[in-house]
Amino acid sequence: MSEANPKQPEQQPVPKAVVNRLSLYLRELQHLLAERRETISSGELGSRLGFTDAQVRKDLAYFGQFGYPGIGYRCGELVPAIRKILGTQFEWPVVMVGIGNLGHALLGYKGFARQGFHIVAALDSDPAKIGTTVEGIEVADISDLVPIIKQKKVRLGMIAVPAPAAQQVADQMVEAGVDGIVNFAPVTISIPEHISLVGVDLAIELEQIAFAVVNRGDSR
Amino acid sequence: MSEANPKQPEQQPVPKAVVNRLSLYLRELQHLLAERRETISSGELGSRLGFTDAQVRKDLAYFGQFGYPGIGYRCGELVPAIRKILGTQFEWPVVMVGIGNLGHALLGYKGFARQGFHIVAALDSDPAKIGTTVEGIEVADISDLVPIIKQKKVRLGMIAVPAPAAQQVADQMVEAGVDGIVNFAPVTISIPEHISLVGVDLAIELEQIAFAVVNRGDSR
Repeated sequence: MSEANPKQPEQQPVPKAVVNRLSLYLRELQHLLAERRETISSGELGSRLGFTDAQVRKDLAYFGQFGYPGIGYRCGELVPAIRKILGTQFEWPVVMVGIGNLGHALLGYKGFARQGFHIVAALDSDPAKIGTTVEGIEVADISDLVPIIKQKKVRLGMIAVPAPAAQQVADQMVEAGVDGIVNFAPVTISIPEHISLVGVDLAIELEQIAFAVVNRGDSR
Repeated sequence: MSEANPKQPEQQPVPKAVVNRLSLYLRELQHLLAERRETISSGELGSRLGFTDAQVRKDLAYFGQFGYPGIGYRCGELVPAIRKILGTQFEWPVVMVGIGNLGHALLGYKGFARQGFHIVAALDSDPAKIGTTVEGIEVADISDLVPIIKQKKVRLGMIAVPAPAAQQVADQMVEAGVDGIVNFAPVTISIPEHISLVGVDLAIELEQIAFAVVNRGDSR
C-alpha cells in the first residue's frame, strides 16, 4: 500500500476527528471481512457510518492512497493498513487499575483484545480482591503498580478507581513509564504533556443523543 | 442570552464534532463554576481542552452570541445555555437493560445524574438478578421492558446486554417508543432512521491513545 503513497504523513498534523473516524472505518471493515466481503466503495463505507464518500476519501488520503479505480477498497488490505496507522498492528500491553464494577466489566470486554490491547495486569487496593482471579487475571496489590508496569513492559494504563484516588494512580503510572493513560474515573487528572491522556466521560454519549433527539435533522 | 442571538440554529446543520465539543466545554465550565470562577476567556477555555480560542468562538457561534467584550464568557450563564442547546436543561428518564458488570457500573455512574440523565428503571433476564436492588434501583424482568418504558415515559435506552441479545432489546425499545439508544454491547445494531443511536466502542479510546503515542506531535 505504501509504495504508491504520494504523501508524507509527517508533513501535516492529523485532526483528532480524523483519527477517531479511522477507528470507525476499521471496525466496519472488520465486520465486512467477517462477512467475507472483499471490496467496498468509499460511498458504501461512508453511508454505513453516516459519512459522505468524500469524507471517507479525504480522511484516508491523510495516510496514503488505498483505493483502486473501479474497485474501491480491498477490505483485506485496508484493515491491516489502518491498524498500522493506528499503531495497533502489534499488541499493546495494558494495565488495569481499579477492579470495581467498571474495572471488572472492562477486564471482560472482548473488544480490547480483538483490537490489539492485551490486559497483562489488574490491580486493586482492596485486600478482599487482591489474589482473586477476575476474568482470568489475578488481581495484584496496587502498591506493586510501579514494579509491575516495569516488569511487564506495560505501555498503556487504564484507570477505573474512585475519583479521589485517580490522580495518585496516574502519577505512579507516569513514574513507571507508561506512554498513555485512559482515565475512566469521573475526574480530570493532570499528567506531563509528553504522556497521552484520554478521559472517558460516559455521559457525553447521552448528551450527544439528547442533542440529536431535540434537534432532529439538525445534526449530521 | 438569546435576545442578541443573530443566528437561527435551524439554518445550518451542526457538525457532530461541534456537538461533541459542546459537551467538553460544558464539563470544563462546570468544573470552573465548582471552583467559583465567574468568567473565562475563549483562549483559556480552549487551552484547558487543547483547542484554539478561534475554535471555541466558532463552535459557540453556531448557537448564538455568548461572550462579552473584555470579559469573556460568564460561566454561570454559559452552563445553562449549553445545557439548553444540548437539551439537558430538563431531566431525561433513561432505562438501563443488562445488569452485568458493565450495567452495574453504569447504574452507579454519578456523571449521568449530574448531567441530567435519570435512570428510572433497570432490567435483566437473569432470575437471580430480578427483584434485587442494584445501586438503589430494583431490577425488573426484561419481559416487562415495553410496558415499563411506556409507563415511566422513558425517552432514552441504554443497552449493556451480551452481544447476541442487543438487537432484540433495541427492537423492543423502538417498539415502546424511545427517542434514542446508547448501545454498549460490542455489536452493531440496526434501528429505524428516526431513532437516534450511539454505539459506544470502548476500544476506540485505546486506539486513539495508541495513535497519539506512535505519532507524537502529529495529532492535535
